[in-house]
Amino acid sequence: MILVVGSVALDSVETPFGKAERVLGGSAVFFSAAASLFGPVGVVGVVGEDYPMGELDFLARRGADLAGIERRPGDSFFWAGRYSYDLNARETLETRLGVFAEFRPSIPDAFRQARFVFLGNIDPVLQLEVLGQVRSPELVVCDTMNYWIEGSRDELLRLLGSVDVLLVNDAEARELAGTPNLLQAARRIMELGPSYVVVKKGEHGAILYAEDWMFFAPGYPLEDVFDPTGAGDAFAGGFLGYLSGSDTLDREELRRAVMYGSAAGSYAVERFSVDRFRELTPLDVAHRVEEFREMTAFEHRLESAADV
Amino acid sequence: MILVVGSVALDSVETPFGKAERVLGGSAVFFSAAASLFGPVGVVGVVGEDYPMGELDFLARRGADLAGIERRPGDSFFWAGRYSYDLNARETLETRLGVFAEFRPSIPDAFRQARFVFLGNIDPVLQLEVLGQVRSPELVVCDTMNYWIEGSRDELLRLLGSVDVLLVNDAEARELAGTPNLLQAARRIMELGPSYVVVKKGEHGAILYAEDWMFFAPGYPLEDVFDPTGAGDAFAGGFLGYLSGSDTLDREELRRAVMYGSAAGSYAVERFSVDRFRELTPLDVAHRVEEFREMTAFEHRLESAADV
Repeated sequence: MILVVGSVALDSVETPFGKAERVLGGSAVFFSAAASLFGPVGVVGVVGEDYPMGELDFLARRGADLAGIERRPGDSFFWAGRYSYDLNARETLETRLGVFAEFRPSIPDAFRQARFVFLGNIDPVLQLEVLGQVRSPELVVCDTMNYWIEGSRDELLRLLGSVDVLLVNDAEARELAGTPNLLQAARRIMELGPSYVVVKKGEHGAILYAEDWMFFAPGYPLEDVFDPTGAGDAFAGGFLGYLSGSDTLDREELRRAVMYGSAAGSYAVERFSVDRFRELTPLDVAHRVEEFREMTAFEHRLESAADV
Repeated sequence: MILVVGSVALDSVETPFGKAERVLGGSAVFFSAAASLFGPVGVVGVVGEDYPMGELDFLARRGADLAGIERRPGDSFFWAGRYSYDLNARETLETRLGVFAEFRPSIPDAFRQARFVFLGNIDPVLQLEVLGQVRSPELVVCDTMNYWIEGSRDELLRLLGSVDVLLVNDAEARELAGTPNLLQAARRIMELGPSYVVVKKGEHGAILYAEDWMFFAPGYPLEDVFDPTGAGDAFAGGFLGYLSGSDTLDREELRRAVMYGSAAGSYAVERFSVDRFRELTPLDVAHRVEEFREMTAFEHRLESAADV
């Protein structure tokens, strides 16, 4: 099982292609939508009385255990944002934390033996509390953001000592490490604890850095990026979802996992919310990974190259 | 032979790592430094009386024919620029065109049968004049920039009708096609003439777009980017240099050529000017291409993926 702890939110999103009001959002939801394609997921989060729990049924049918989503008096986490035409600049119009402001993750007994843990982007103090409640997971993957890097640096550094994979975007990696050079940034972050750093670069793909190797995944070339919200969490869901079907977390599996993450992230942006995942199958994702292979593979013979 | 027409300049460059005064620069020089590693290159350009022709000896020794570099009364093209710490923002401090302002490329007879032509970033009117002087090259590769896209659009569009490969950076591709989406931009550019569009994305690598396939090359992960000047022209030199040793310009060769371009570009930025190319061998470049293979290759079985 994969345990995910993160936000379960309602999003209102405007893009050049349209508008969606109060649709499913939040890191735990995007993660689960992708990860549950591949195996069981235990979801931990909090919602208010206004949350349309019925809309999460498609996740439950697919094997996501929603028993860890606490329902509390008050409103759910609400985020409203707008993307400009180039879809790189995102403007937050409104954030209302609601019941999320008092979120203290409590991990159900049934989730405590999870083989994999994904700590969505929440307060590192809470992320640490989650790790205090689980029993020796095989792989702990963690996301964070500039807000915590700047405001809760000490707590974040403490957390990183217990994390196997840090999964952040390029700006976050640079800010956390204090260097504009990504390779240097990844190395410095690995010195803080994680064995792997996965840097997500949006349309430019993702890079997995390990101690003595690295792996590049391109971004999937889409003609229309409909709504970028949730791509990073869907990446994490594809990454851990793929690994959850694997017996050995070796280099080859980790490389494939990055590709599954990149594929899952590319599906997330094709529709609003998690809509693209509703009818998606694992085979669809595998086909996109196969496309990636066709777009990156090349034969090369060192000897003949030296002849020129 | 590869014919290259472009600027032969003197550059003064400041980066966070140091300063270089009046060193070898210009698109034709960077291109030749990379391409001449792989085969004969005919260079066409213009310099003033101040140009230190002796410093180009290392290119001549390697098989670059400099007979097409005209020497005229006046000063050489001079460019001075500064890079900020993140090396993405480049500030031009001074541009003096000198004899380059009156440059009218005249292709020596010996170069007119060139199998490959690289039209460096100059006025599209001049690039067209070059094509009028050569006899049926197998592949014409062309670079351009925002200045011509905005100011000489009609001439550029006319030129594109006679070009096989347009090699531009991502901002130029977007501006030329009038869309922020790179895939759409590449498709629109191919409708204007070129069979292939190669989009250079700096540290994010490069993408080769063809009618019904595409190929992604990552950027080489460097701990220190010493001086980004000339990376794009070195890319072109590696790309065409590799192809010049090839009998068939098929899909597999083009994919490898992009990798050789990416490798050549990565060497360019490791030192000032073309200094990194002075002692470089084709085998060095091939080794870097091999590293790219190790950073991108993965095995994938669609059937087992569908089992999960």
